Amino acid sequence: MATEPDVRGHAGREFFTTRTVAEALAGFRPARRTGAETIPLADALHRVPAAAVTAPHPLPGFARSTVDGYAVRAADTYGVSEGLPGYLDVAGAVRMGTEPEVTVAPGTVAVMPTGGVLPPGADAVVMVEYTQEAMPGTIEVTRPVAPGEGVVRADEDAAAGAELVPAGRPLRAQDLGMLAAAGVTEVSVHARPRVTVFSTGDEVVPPQTAELRPGQVRDATATALAALITQAGGEARHGGIMPDDRAALEAALRGALPASDMIVISAGSSVGARDETAAAVARLGPPGIWCHGLAIRPTLLAECASVPVIGLPGNPRSALVVFRLIGMPLVRRAGGCTSPPAEPVVRARLARDVASAAGRLDVVQVRLEDGLAVPLFGLSALLSILTAADGYVVVPEEATGLGSGTDVDVTLYG
Amino acid sequence: MATEPDVRGHAGREFFTTRTVAEALAGFRPARRTGAETIPLADALHRVPAAAVTAPHPLPGFARSTVDGYAVRAADTYGVSEGLPGYLDVAGAVRMGTEPEVTVAPGTVAVMPTGGVLPPGADAVVMVEYTQEAMPGTIEVTRPVAPGEGVVRADEDAAAGAELVPAGRPLRAQDLGMLAAAGVTEVSVHARPRVTVFSTGDEVVPPQTAELRPGQVRDATATALAALITQAGGEARHGGIMPDDRAALEAALRGALPASDMIVISAGSSVGARDETAAAVARLGPPGIWCHGLAIRPTLLAECASVPVIGLPGNPRSALVVFRLIGMPLVRRAGGCTSPPAEPVVRARLARDVASAAGRLDVVQVRLEDGLAVPLFGLSALLSILTAADGYVVVPEEATGLGSGTDVDVTLYG
Repeated sequence: MATEPDVRGHAGREFFTTRTVAEALAGFRPARRTGAETIPLADALHRVPAAAVTAPHPLPGFARSTVDGYAVRAADTYGVSEGLPGYLDVAGAVRMGTEPEVTVAPGTVAVMPTGGVLPPGADAVVMVEYTQEAMPGTIEVTRPVAPGEGVVRADEDAAAGAELVPAGRPLRAQDLGMLAAAGVTEVSVHARPRVTVFSTGDEVVPPQTAELRPGQVRDATATALAALITQAGGEARHGGIMPDDRAALEAALRGALPASDMIVISAGSSVGARDETAAAVARLGPPGIWCHGLAIRPTLLAECASVPVIGLPGNPRSALVVFRLIGMPLVRRAGGCTSPPAEPVVRARLARDVASAAGRLDVVQVRLEDGLAVPLFGLSALLSILTAADGYVVVPEEATGLGSGTDVDVTLYG
Repeated sequence: MATEPDVRGHAGREFFTTRTVAEALAGFRPARRTGAETIPLADALHRVPAAAVTAPHPLPGFARSTVDGYAVRAADTYGVSEGLPGYLDVAGAVRMGTEPEVTVAPGTVAVMPTGGVLPPGADAVVMVEYTQEAMPGTIEVTRPVAPGEGVVRADEDAAAGAELVPAGRPLRAQDLGMLAAAGVTEVSVHARPRVTVFSTGDEVVPPQTAELRPGQVRDATATALAALITQAGGEARHGGIMPDDRAALEAALRGALPASDMIVISAGSSVGARDETAAAVARLGPPGIWCHGLAIRPTLLAECASVPVIGLPGNPRSALVVFRLIGMPLVRRAGGCTSPPAEPVVRARLARDVASAAGRLDVVQVRLEDGLAVPLFGLSALLSILTAADGYVVVPEEATGLGSGTDVDVTLYG
């Protein structure tokens, strides 16, 4: 890429550039964004508005009572008290959902339900609790109200043209409610980024393979990656399982470029397989490979023909860990999301020492037990460590480990 | 309900039983759960397994190398060092995805890719980094390995019959990966609870109403509630907008019972409308109304003909706040979820004093600004307070307010 012209192949030789995760998140920023599409509001939860949506008219659109009581002229209540109530005549009643037929003249009130239209003449609503019927057609008011009290102004929820929801922030339940209130029943959102997932490795077979031959493993990574892509707002597409064959992989990747906003390759587990993946990606097109390793795991980041390409480590557990840290933010960004939702994080006390090499970011899987974060140790090849975990703790590159009793932030899986 | 026989109507008179939110969460526990349905694994993200899924066979199913290197008999490496390397003959190579054709006899090794099957005779794999080619067909080993080193046992990820995922915990990405690895491509999950949403109020019109007449408001609540129901794993159904008419509401509710696992009514905003809702619900069937108010807002909790019924406050903002606290846990429970996902919570310092009446639970909407939680004050009728908020702070019933500078937990919207 433009900022790193020297990291790509030179006369057939590759430079293995290793980056920290923070450098990758900050520095690898493909420009590709999905276009806009218009969808019904009912389908828009968590979708990302392509532009801010503004109020077509003021909301609620009329001065509205916030209490059950009586619409009054505030001046008619000045000085009243429990001991010296004011007496006002009931001129009529406001009915819900219709224009008032009553006008509040000096010395009169109108019966007012919560949510009703403030009738002409009135400028406040006195709560029913501060009134009582003195005689049929007349009430006592025992507490004064100020103008505007008990009333929502006609444009208090939104003025005409006010921003109802911003661009780039995934729509939440209340945002959909606000749009419904404004009569906005369709919304222009970023299309879900199409993320094509390839698995590589001569040993990898589809999950539906009933009987495995010795040496075969079912493709766990593609299924799990598809779920993470969905969680990040993307649409996972199945690229297929590729043998360890550079030409075949290159052809498959090239074929997927036109219909992909991103390509993810879970590389074969051996060094040789990873090299084949890198070689295939290097030939896909400019600007090419941005980095070939992360301080966490062998991870390839590239941009080929304007499509971001991520090569993940071979074992499923590492692939998922890296995709959470690097891939999901890239999917979100490709889908126009500028305010990603917060992940649930809890503070817990580490139950045991955790070792970590300096210069290497480690992700420690933990179980939460009574406020303790219990590290789950085990080979990185084991997916069962991830399924047993409630969340994970990141040990940054500069740390050489964390001592038992350290307070750590645990990012929870969901 | 059985535990509260005296809270329901007596000779036409209602007892208004008010509960705290904690009491409601602990005490209102309808028994209804949805049945099981079998779905493809690819659709199972966040669905709730109806039963634990166990491994049909050991995983990975064969002793597997975790490194690139050489399969060895560990005993052949004892005592070797940089200064005194061991010399071993290369008997052959293991290929990925196939049964090894080589056997490792004493004094020999086999070339081993990460993920390959450990060949007969070998009990460990020495990393390539600790070897070098001494001459064609012979390697030097400079570091000893123990039996089992560099190898995943055949049942180390899961023994046959081991639990892969528990019942009741929504499936996460890694859980789907684990099931794929085990060849489980369909999973039995709880059906999504069908939650029928009714809106009431003579003033309420559908969101697609282009032109409002004075006094009309569009139904914001039903759209927002549908989103929260979806987030809680339910399937929202549109019951419709009902006028403030007890008989019509009762008939509509009764008609919805057979196809609902839960009914939610966003009541009209006036006291009268709420009473009509309660009266309609009271006639739906036993065991009936459990409480008629919460320490937060007028909220009705009932169980009628085994269907939980929730009556929410009239204004959209209160309705959404209450549904988050009370309704979403009930939807999750109806859908068999016993381990609800954690919500994102951050600790922040309150930027201003917040008042709260003792005995009343308050939910304060806040914006987060540089680690400060800035309370958003405004009429409870305003939905714009919710759309401006990043999250909320709960002021419990026993508190009389929170002082500026207090550290508070902010539950973030997403």
